[in-house]
Amino acid sequence: MAERTIYTIGRQFGSGGRQVGKALAERLGIPYYDKELLAMAAKDSGFSESLFHDADEKPASSLLYSLVMGNYPMSSGTLGFNEMPLNDQLFLIQSNTIRKVASKGSCVIIGRCADYVLRDDPDVISIFIHAPIAARVKRAVESYGIEKERAEDVCLKNDKSRANFYNYYSDHKWGMCRTYSISLDSALIGIEGCVDEIVRFTELRNAHKDEAGTI
Amino acid sequence: MAERTIYTIGRQFGSGGRQVGKALAERLGIPYYDKELLAMAAKDSGFSESLFHDADEKPASSLLYSLVMGNYPMSSGTLGFNEMPLNDQLFLIQSNTIRKVASKGSCVIIGRCADYVLRDDPDVISIFIHAPIAARVKRAVESYGIEKERAEDVCLKNDKSRANFYNYYSDHKWGMCRTYSISLDSALIGIEGCVDEIVRFTELRNAHKDEAGTI
Repeated sequence: MAERTIYTIGRQFGSGGRQVGKALAERLGIPYYDKELLAMAAKDSGFSESLFHDADEKPASSLLYSLVMGNYPMSSGTLGFNEMPLNDQLFLIQSNTIRKVASKGSCVIIGRCADYVLRDDPDVISIFIHAPIAARVKRAVESYGIEKERAEDVCLKNDKSRANFYNYYSDHKWGMCRTYSISLDSALIGIEGCVDEIVRFTELRNAHKDEAGTI
Repeated sequence: MAERTIYTIGRQFGSGGRQVGKALAERLGIPYYDKELLAMAAKDSGFSESLFHDADEKPASSLLYSLVMGNYPMSSGTLGFNEMPLNDQLFLIQSNTIRKVASKGSCVIIGRCADYVLRDDPDVISIFIHAPIAARVKRAVESYGIEKERAEDVCLKNDKSRANFYNYYSDHKWGMCRTYSISLDSALIGIEGCVDEIVRFTELRNAHKDEAGTI
């Protein structure tokens, strides 16, 4: 497991994907990036951290909103950085932060289109964690303290928001098998089970790479 | 591995999903059903085997076609078996055959909405195998003897047909992570690598089930 591997984790809300990422980083002794990325992106750019929190995993404001707010150019041609909608600017800054942390060596990155940002990096293993809605509601209530009556709605709305964000900034599709190296139902094998499967997947991939000479 | 487990495998064309199924069945010493299901369904029903081959993993003919062919009832109300479009009749017969083989014990079943047909069976592990298009074209040319110029088109058209079939007869979605227990990119870990991951997944699921008392 000495080879550099970047693990990117997409996840349904309440599936425990974040916990899988944390447990994976701990087991392998490598850095873990989730909300940490926001503070780093803020530091890199000079924008305030709260701006990154507000925009986190949300797509750019609608064109209409941008027009009303006056931050969309009416002329044709390629947009300069300062002419882009704010969320697009924040996304580009965050993507640079993702590339920077990934260049330092093995790590785990949660969400934020990291698999797409790093799509040309051969050392990426991209993962998607999901679970049936009943299991996700249970986790949302028990672990995140969300009211039982609202929990299903919160799960579904967060998924929709993450899918919109991912599909807006990438040309892959959120939650489709072909977007990821491996996807797992966490309700069937638990958090540590997911970590086991991902570690085994890494060993198999390294062996397969050596066998084939190249991927 | 003494517990009954039914493995259903969905797959992109050219991903090696069928080979994964065969290798899995061999490693576990359990039956493997692919085209075999068609002969069994024919025998069960009295319809000819060639009819099942023609309809294999294709959705029912369009309503227009059915009207022209005169096999769609113009009256309202629930359809009797003999009033259904032929492909729907064949699908129901094939589903009964799938339930019959699954009731006999552990096995591997390729495609044909088996995961959906058996959706209430707690012993099902549903798998999706996929790979990047370049790897699938390579397999289509080298293993299936398809002309290089046509191979990509054949892969994409077969995927579309399988997706249509699956989405028509189920209320799940073909190729979405949440439809399956586990999905794997076969190009990254190879056929035997996929088998390793699935066997490990089974062990983890059995341990998790024992731990939780129930899934």
